[in-house]
Amino acid sequence: MIMSLETKLMQRLQAAEKEMISIRRHLHRHPEISFHEKETAHYIKQFYQGLDCQVRDCGTGYGIIVDIIGGHSGPKIALRADFDALAIQEDNDLPFKSVNPGAMHACGHDAHTAYLLVLAKQLIALKADLHGSVRILHQPAEEVAPGGALSMIKAGCLTNVDRVLGLHVMSSIPTGTIGYHQGETQTGRSNFTVKFIGKGGHASMPQLANDAIVAGSYFVTLLQTVVARRLDPFATASVTIGSFDGAGTFNAIKAAVTLKGDVRVMQESTRQLVHQQIEQIIRGVETTFNVHADLDYDDNYPVLYNEPQLTQKVVAAIQHAAIPEIKHITDCGPQDPSEDFAYYAQKRPSCFFYVGCMPDDQQNHPHHSPNFLLNEAALLIAAKAAGTAVLNLLAPEN
Amino acid sequence: MIMSLETKLMQRLQAAEKEMISIRRHLHRHPEISFHEKETAHYIKQFYQGLDCQVRDCGTGYGIIVDIIGGHSGPKIALRADFDALAIQEDNDLPFKSVNPGAMHACGHDAHTAYLLVLAKQLIALKADLHGSVRILHQPAEEVAPGGALSMIKAGCLTNVDRVLGLHVMSSIPTGTIGYHQGETQTGRSNFTVKFIGKGGHASMPQLANDAIVAGSYFVTLLQTVVARRLDPFATASVTIGSFDGAGTFNAIKAAVTLKGDVRVMQESTRQLVHQQIEQIIRGVETTFNVHADLDYDDNYPVLYNEPQLTQKVVAAIQHAAIPEIKHITDCGPQDPSEDFAYYAQKRPSCFFYVGCMPDDQQNHPHHSPNFLLNEAALLIAAKAAGTAVLNLLAPEN
Amino acid sequence: MIMSLETKLMQRLQAAEKEMISIRRHLHRHPEISFHEKETAHYIKQFYQGLDCQVRDCGTGYGIIVDIIGGHSGPKIALRADFDALAIQEDNDLPFKSVNPGAMHACGHDAHTAYLLVLAKQLIALKADLHGSVRILHQPAEEVAPGGALSMIKAGCLTNVDRVLGLHVMSSIPTGTIGYHQGETQTGRSNFTVKFIGKGGHASMPQLANDAIVAGSYFVTLLQTVVARRLDPFATASVTIGSFDGAGTFNAIKAAVTLKGDVRVMQESTRQLVHQQIEQIIRGVETTFNVHADLDYDDNYPVLYNEPQLTQKVVAAIQHAAIPEIKHITDCGPQDPSEDFAYYAQKRPSCFFYVGCMPDDQQNHPHHSPNFLLNEAALLIAAKAAGTAVLNLLAPEN
Amino acid sequence: MIMSLETKLMQRLQAAEKEMISIRRHLHRHPEISFHEKETAHYIKQFYQGLDCQVRDCGTGYGIIVDIIGGHSGPKIALRADFDALAIQEDNDLPFKSVNPGAMHACGHDAHTAYLLVLAKQLIALKADLHGSVRILHQPAEEVAPGGALSMIKAGCLTNVDRVLGLHVMSSIPTGTIGYHQGETQTGRSNFTVKFIGKGGHASMPQLANDAIVAGSYFVTLLQTVVARRLDPFATASVTIGSFDGAGTFNAIKAAVTLKGDVRVMQESTRQLVHQQIEQIIRGVETTFNVHADLDYDDNYPVLYNEPQLTQKVVAAIQHAAIPEIKHITDCGPQDPSEDFAYYAQKRPSCFFYVGCMPDDQQNHPHHSPNFLLNEAALLIAAKAAGTAVLNLLAPEN
Repeated sequence: MIMSLETKLMQRLQAAEKEMISIRRHLHRHPEISFHEKETAHYIKQFYQGLDCQVRDCGTGYGIIVDIIGGHSGPKIALRADFDALAIQEDNDLPFKSVNPGAMHACGHDAHTAYLLVLAKQLIALKADLHGSVRILHQPAEEVAPGGALSMIKAGCLTNVDRVLGLHVMSSIPTGTIGYHQGETQTGRSNFTVKFIGKGGHASMPQLANDAIVAGSYFVTLLQTVVARRLDPFATASVTIGSFDGAGTFNAIKAAVTLKGDVRVMQESTRQLVHQQIEQIIRGVETTFNVHADLDYDDNYPVLYNEPQLTQKVVAAIQHAAIPEIKHITDCGPQDPSEDFAYYAQKRPSCFFYVGCMPDDQQNHPHHSPNFLLNEAALLIAAKAAGTAVLNLLAPEN
Repeated sequence: MIMSLETKLMQRLQAAEKEMISIRRHLHRHPEISFHEKETAHYIKQFYQGLDCQVRDCGTGYGIIVDIIGGHSGPKIALRADFDALAIQEDNDLPFKSVNPGAMHACGHDAHTAYLLVLAKQLIALKADLHGSVRILHQPAEEVAPGGALSMIKAGCLTNVDRVLGLHVMSSIPTGTIGYHQGETQTGRSNFTVKFIGKGGHASMPQLANDAIVAGSYFVTLLQTVVARRLDPFATASVTIGSFDGAGTFNAIKAAVTLKGDVRVMQESTRQLVHQQIEQIIRGVETTFNVHADLDYDDNYPVLYNEPQLTQKVVAAIQHAAIPEIKHITDCGPQDPSEDFAYYAQKRPSCFFYVGCMPDDQQNHPHHSPNFLLNEAALLIAAKAAGTAVLNLLAPEN
Repeated sequence: MIMSLETKLMQRLQAAEKEMISIRRHLHRHPEISFHEKETAHYIKQFYQGLDCQVRDCGTGYGIIVDIIGGHSGPKIALRADFDALAIQEDNDLPFKSVNPGAMHACGHDAHTAYLLVLAKQLIALKADLHGSVRILHQPAEEVAPGGALSMIKAGCLTNVDRVLGLHVMSSIPTGTIGYHQGETQTGRSNFTVKFIGKGGHASMPQLANDAIVAGSYFVTLLQTVVARRLDPFATASVTIGSFDGAGTFNAIKAAVTLKGDVRVMQESTRQLVHQQIEQIIRGVETTFNVHADLDYDDNYPVLYNEPQLTQKVVAAIQHAAIPEIKHITDCGPQDPSEDFAYYAQKRPSCFFYVGCMPDDQQNHPHHSPNFLLNEAALLIAAKAAGTAVLNLLAPEN
Repeated sequence: MIMSLETKLMQRLQAAEKEMISIRRHLHRHPEISFHEKETAHYIKQFYQGLDCQVRDCGTGYGIIVDIIGGHSGPKIALRADFDALAIQEDNDLPFKSVNPGAMHACGHDAHTAYLLVLAKQLIALKADLHGSVRILHQPAEEVAPGGALSMIKAGCLTNVDRVLGLHVMSSIPTGTIGYHQGETQTGRSNFTVKFIGKGGHASMPQLANDAIVAGSYFVTLLQTVVARRLDPFATASVTIGSFDGAGTFNAIKAAVTLKGDVRVMQESTRQLVHQQIEQIIRGVETTFNVHADLDYDDNYPVLYNEPQLTQKVVAAIQHAAIPEIKHITDCGPQDPSEDFAYYAQKRPSCFFYVGCMPDDQQNHPHHSPNFLLNEAALLIAAKAAGTAVLNLLAPEN
């Protein structure tokens, strides 16, 4: 009996589960925040030492591109995993708890990198049988704009790439479930910083000052009308002021305050309308309060678009593989957060899907929580699902 | 010809002008912020070394009480000067610029202490002729609630004191002008800290969080109705949020914000009404936004009340003395800021007046500015005016 | 050659186009506003005089139910058209312009009733060949809550009915295009009236009054947070204050104001959340401003749900019929307005679709405009599309 | 014994008390609102029929000027009483309750006119003894801007007048008490109408409309900052929106709303600052919400200034007269409402004082209440006080 390539890969991944978990724990213990992932990048490159593949730095940041050239001609499929951590102090009691103060893998990028390293290793081992090639994208700095994807694309990571796959572990989805959605799948994001500059003074003499806290506060209330009154109710959008920096002494009128805002949308037309309306409101606040506003507005992460045909193909492949650890494959609908994977998806047909990693006790601490935990069984599932999808996209008939 | 006591004092003060300026410059160079005036207190006590008077620590904080017992029986008049500096980085280019980073005599307390030390010294020299006694109150911590006055009073600084005098140099009043007002003269002050506690979260999922910045901002707008709609238009009041501490990252919803507020009033009934209305609004914000509010509200500095008869007597004495450096004595109306001298005035008939110290070039940087400057000619004027007033209040017929 | 039933019906409708237009013009000239459609109901009943069908009053309001019993057994399909007009003064210059002051068929219900009367007449003529029966629902009062649908349902209009069809002419869709959507298709609606009761007074003495206009205005600004901050960005909702009744004299403080609000949602869970949040904000306003609020909140029109299988069947039937006047059949997405047809769709699998009626000159005055115009070619299209759908649903194989 | 002129007048007024009350009741029963006082003016002129004085119409409105020329030369003193009623439906149960629907003497102008008619009659009887002359100003339209005073002044009512006296009955002051204040005594007033014009639309489609109610509501909240943050806390001001006319249907977005505002100040400089700030906020609202604002701003009633020397003279005269019905004469402080008597006081040294008219049961319904009542004993007091003051100002030595 001849074992299929898929079966070989599945068996190899199964055998490598402990290695995945071990790598994940190492990464978890040594998190590095976005744009500062020096040691992590070094670790990744060390991993490929001696493996038969082409490894190169992106040249900007810590991004690493690994090419696995198959024995047969065929398409080039990219697989991406991010490896940056968050500026969060871990509040878990784990043997492999973060040893870096103020840094934590609280989003699961440690799992992403761990499964993909091991998957890459097995694909390298099987590369003679591959029809086409696989490009591994180890991406830094997903969490912080402008993100690492953009610079990797500028460095040419998509050259000759036909399609891109990515995935995210999700603690809100039961382990054993794969989630997907086609079309617009994660929100696009813009962010802005606005500084309102009035005039400081003594709290007992408001007439001689111009209170920036008052201007900034009314601005926050006016901003509510963007989503509530200026958009089609069918449009998806949120506008958040995440930072209102107006700390001072109680008895002095604050001269200036700095606010930072976050915008999420599911359509680029909505993004433009929100941007225009926020600017208009800021101009109105300037007039109303006779303050000056310095605005720095950045339209960054695109809406993540899962190409429908590719997505259906990926889902079908996973379903067809009948991976025993995968109990359900479900359309989980669009997701609120943004992802800089969206930049790849702007350039190439792409599919980004979700691997449930809810802990067995159902205690689901959200991503970005200092108590975030993941079910490590998700690593093998991720590796099998991604591996199946890649093989399927490389198969001669595809 | 027999020289009057007043004439003697005036001549002595005139002769000591350079000493006053020298002391003032020393203090200016070595400012210490409120409640941390250790070296300044030491310097003051050193000054009295060898002088024939009784010097004692208050026991709480750095307050110093100096008693000058006259040769004749009579009333006991207290003279108060404050000696704390502000937490401001000086931005002047002076030979005696502050050498203490982040501390500056930007309100003129250096001048107050300098003139009063020298005045005390001359009164000590003349004490055999005094009818009654003079108590010098060197008070720390005027700038920061709860202020130094309260603890000095608790320490007994007003025991057997009949009347209290104080003065403030004022850069908005031309040098050579004395300002006064009777009755309610400076605002009373309350201050509060309120923390609104919602629930943090990811900026893309407002429905799972409870945005404390939004609650705090609406609170600031609602607070405007206290002065605008809830008080008699004839009442004097201001309500300022001097601090809105809501700094965070743009893409996270802020769980909690802390605001600090300042309230000024000219009537205690207004103070109570403002307090009650602010509490009511905070309760309303809690309900409206389902947040929890921690409120710490402190009704502190009283309205400063200048006892009318005493004020008229002080003004008459200064006018009658015909001090050549004093060109005008004028009712300058009530003053917006608060003063913890008000605590003395709650306990004893008191008078607090103003000594113009506008620089010769008319460039008037407001008090508490990092560019605050004063005309040192004001020191001699302050000493002469206060000296005249004290002698007059001690005179047998008074 | 045996002509199919569908072909017979199409030919008959084609021949009756002038009658439809004539009826529509009669109705347009004689509009009656919701709940006052006495003459219109009379006109409709007159139309059926002498036709072989069962006509009966609903018993509540002016609703009329007409049953056309087919010669063969089969399902019972209901077809609904609304016949009320709006309280709008027509601003068109038409030979059949409204003769009733302040009333206008500005939404196209005249067209709905006209096409359906004629379609019913032809179905009656062909009823021997029908497999099953057709129930015609002439519904009053679609425009004004609680709407006419609810009372017709209470009167039994859906008894034994299997499926319900309805349509709306749409001036924003080109004539010749049929629009449809499956699943949630039109918003559900709630509405509320809130009266804020403070205390009146003289404008010069705000401290003695309690300004209801101020309370009401802050309420409007607070209300913006419902959609902007309290809902999932993927949820669809709008909250509008359509009426702020606070007229008074400039120099008196208003004791009370009455606001009327409108809520639209696409999910019942969103409706409940909005309702709960609005109540919470109102309770907060009561506390904040010490006003009393009388709230009357009515959750009325459901989300209109087009049953997917039925919708696909209707669309397929129309496509298959290859009606020459119909150039396009397109998924037009969900529609913002609400429709009390949704009540039928709560009870029975239903499909509500859209018939383009944009005038030839592309001048599209929105529905409810005093300048609303429709392309009368849409009547024949509506009749053919609805007729085709009904026949298809009655056909033996369905 | 020779009776003084003052004694004669007092005796005559005492004897005429019933006449005053009878006139007052007649006027109360037949109130006419501002600018429509045709019958009242006729009644007043009838009263002077046959009396030895000069009566003439002002020529504009219903104002009447009556000159009483004394037998001796001397100054010319004007006495003013207003005679318009309010647009209020009386809610009292009185034998002389208003018979004119929607009109009521709810401010006491009936009392003013009644006492002054009778006082004038007695002065006419005594005119041979007067040193100088008395001009009676029967003024219409005090309640409604632009007020009647301005047009009477334009008509020359102050020509050759030296001083002007006026008074107001006050239900908040006990009967038997005279109140006065010198300097700024009643607020000045401005008023404005602003219409915010957005774009109407269907409540389900806010993106196609521009909600004027939202713009108007935020405007009201922004307006709170004028008094709360933009004025000196020692300044007196109020800004009221007395009318928010935004009534509509719940399910339509309102295209335009009209707001009416009232401004009170005690200094003309405050008035200008408030005006400028309101305009600035309106400009800001236009930008913020992309609405158009039509503003009609009218700076009308001046601050009422009681000339200090004259006021002291009037008070001294009343005190000296020892009128038995007057128990107290007290500085009642400044008063919140505005008075168009202020226009006379802009042109001539004037004094406007207050005559307590609190009912015996202490039930004090405020002026402008539909339940307003006055103690008719105040009429005689008003006549005696005003008569005393006039005689004193006419006396040779004055």
